[in-house]
Amino acid sequence: MRVLVTALLTLALLGCSKPQDQEVAAQPQQLHQWKLVTSWPKNFPGLGMAPERFAERVNQMSNGRLTITVYGAGDLLPAFEVFDAVSQGTAEMGHSAAYYWKGKVPAAQFFSTLPFGMNAQEMNSWLSYGGGMALWHEVYAPFGIKPLAGGNTGVQMGGWFNKEINSLEDFKGLKMRLPGLGGEVLARLGGVPVTLPGRELFTALQTGAIDATEWVGPYNDLAFGLHKAATYYYYPGWHEPGTTLEFIVNQKAYDALPADLQAIVVSASQAVNQDMLDEYTMRNIDALHALVQDHGVQLRRFPDDVLEALRLASAQVVAEQAASDAQMKKVYDSYRNFYQGVRRYHKISEEAYNQARGPIEQD
Amino acid sequence: MRVLVTALLTLALLGCSKPQDQEVAAQPQQLHQWKLVTSWPKNFPGLGMAPERFAERVNQMSNGRLTITVYGAGDLLPAFEVFDAVSQGTAEMGHSAAYYWKGKVPAAQFFSTLPFGMNAQEMNSWLSYGGGMALWHEVYAPFGIKPLAGGNTGVQMGGWFNKEINSLEDFKGLKMRLPGLGGEVLARLGGVPVTLPGRELFTALQTGAIDATEWVGPYNDLAFGLHKAATYYYYPGWHEPGTTLEFIVNQKAYDALPADLQAIVVSASQAVNQDMLDEYTMRNIDALHALVQDHGVQLRRFPDDVLEALRLASAQVVAEQAASDAQMKKVYDSYRNFYQGVRRYHKISEEAYNQARGPIEQD
Repeated sequence: MRVLVTALLTLALLGCSKPQDQEVAAQPQQLHQWKLVTSWPKNFPGLGMAPERFAERVNQMSNGRLTITVYGAGDLLPAFEVFDAVSQGTAEMGHSAAYYWKGKVPAAQFFSTLPFGMNAQEMNSWLSYGGGMALWHEVYAPFGIKPLAGGNTGVQMGGWFNKEINSLEDFKGLKMRLPGLGGEVLARLGGVPVTLPGRELFTALQTGAIDATEWVGPYNDLAFGLHKAATYYYYPGWHEPGTTLEFIVNQKAYDALPADLQAIVVSASQAVNQDMLDEYTMRNIDALHALVQDHGVQLRRFPDDVLEALRLASAQVVAEQAASDAQMKKVYDSYRNFYQGVRRYHKISEEAYNQARGPIEQD
Repeated sequence: MRVLVTALLTLALLGCSKPQDQEVAAQPQQLHQWKLVTSWPKNFPGLGMAPERFAERVNQMSNGRLTITVYGAGDLLPAFEVFDAVSQGTAEMGHSAAYYWKGKVPAAQFFSTLPFGMNAQEMNSWLSYGGGMALWHEVYAPFGIKPLAGGNTGVQMGGWFNKEINSLEDFKGLKMRLPGLGGEVLARLGGVPVTLPGRELFTALQTGAIDATEWVGPYNDLAFGLHKAATYYYYPGWHEPGTTLEFIVNQKAYDALPADLQAIVVSASQAVNQDMLDEYTMRNIDALHALVQDHGVQLRRFPDDVLEALRLASAQVVAEQAASDAQMKKVYDSYRNFYQGVRRYHKISEEAYNQARGPIEQD
């Protein structure tokens, strides 16, 4: 961190010529320059725009007293070294997703997304008012990291397939790129989960190295050209129903900020947290239209019995993981308690309303 | 607006004793004190907390350079004079809901909520990325007002009734507190819409002056004690499926702010816009539980044919209104175009996922 020290002297309506009248309240202030490392290519659509917009807002609101330089994955360090870099203070901030750190912090997964878990609106409420954020702080505190919600993709898509999924039998032996807990669920149903970085998906799918892949949603999937390598586009994305991204801040760097800049960092992250979902929603509308109308993609819903089996296996996998680790169990209990309550409420509000909206015009 | 002028002189690492070495960049800055008038009682749960939290964030982020005093309805001026007061500059800001100004600005209704219109997630995207905010600016510009989204209640409840609604016949002659477009829809179905302020609802319902009323949702409805005056609590709230609240700013006052304070006002409003929905979601979970478990409230879903009739009448009412006013037609076209697109996308994402979640545990 480069620190430029500037002394700002408040001289209320007075100049240096009348020292005896000055109400000089010395306010020594620092100009802070931070590095923000991310798990996405620089300016990657959707995910990668959140850190850019965050840095821009902070720069504007602080009048340049806190400037943040955003580095794409591979620029300063590899995509999955973001957490360690922020923990060690190599970078003051990072933008990533909590489930990437499950090898180090198993409980982190609950702060991104769970198969058949909460959607974006529910995650936001759990984090802000349901105790989730306090637990997230607790989980990251040993690493000297302060977490902040950093965007949401909304419900993702179920993925790209070259054969139709008509029954559970069709998952047997299916090689699908599906990392994390979703992959473990697939394995329970006889599939073969594969982990591959996003940039390799198109080639792997086109060459038949994998039979299927999920990525994000229409906007990001169209940009990767996945529709040129697969025919069927399945929904819903049961494995990532509202993925929360994260800003992570080196706690010492945060503590070294004056209170106004701390408040600016927090409010800017909240504004960007909503902004990402707002943007994804709009861009997914347009991308879905292009995929179906211009590229002839075949939309398919997973059959009921397949979704039911995925749901039961997901509950098993999550419960087993939670039982294996005391901290994970603590977070799981909070998540599960909130989830049951919010589902009861959303059943008679958001969900009941959606059902009442009837058919879509001109569909 | 009271303006306290303070001169901040930047003296880089130097004091007044060495004037010849000073790189004095004079930054004359003002301390701004704003008044924010609202349409809610001071600190009213939910709605009234948004302006308080907004003022607190702005104060923190600006390090006291912009302080905002929040006035409840009736403190400085009546609840429904907020728009005029901000337009005239009597107050620099207001917090209210756009549909209150429909008598003066018919198109304003689109920026709060429409019967059978968009939900919170959809409204946020339309406003931020679908052209909605630009139109909102255009609609308020003649009044010298800059609008900002200022929170969302989520899908509201359908209201409190002392008789069950089994068919459309039950709406005939029903005196229900249901203001705005929702009330006009009720009238088409033979009901008698009544406009009453929130504080009068309990007594009106208890004395039989009205047969039914809607208010907001479990959190606000429980606080008003409406469950003591009615037996049946209906859902979903077809008439307010995701009400956007508004911050309105006197354009001249906003233009007089330096760029950093302008950015702080905008980001603080966005953070608070999400914060309100986060809080409502959590508090509605708890309030719904209390209403059903502790107070024996009977939850009822409007019958399918009633919802269908309400939906068709709503489409008629909104289309007729839009056709009556050129500006309203312009906003309606944007709203409707976005709505059709987002419904197609949410049908295979948010809605399809909700349907796949299956039964609620321990229900």
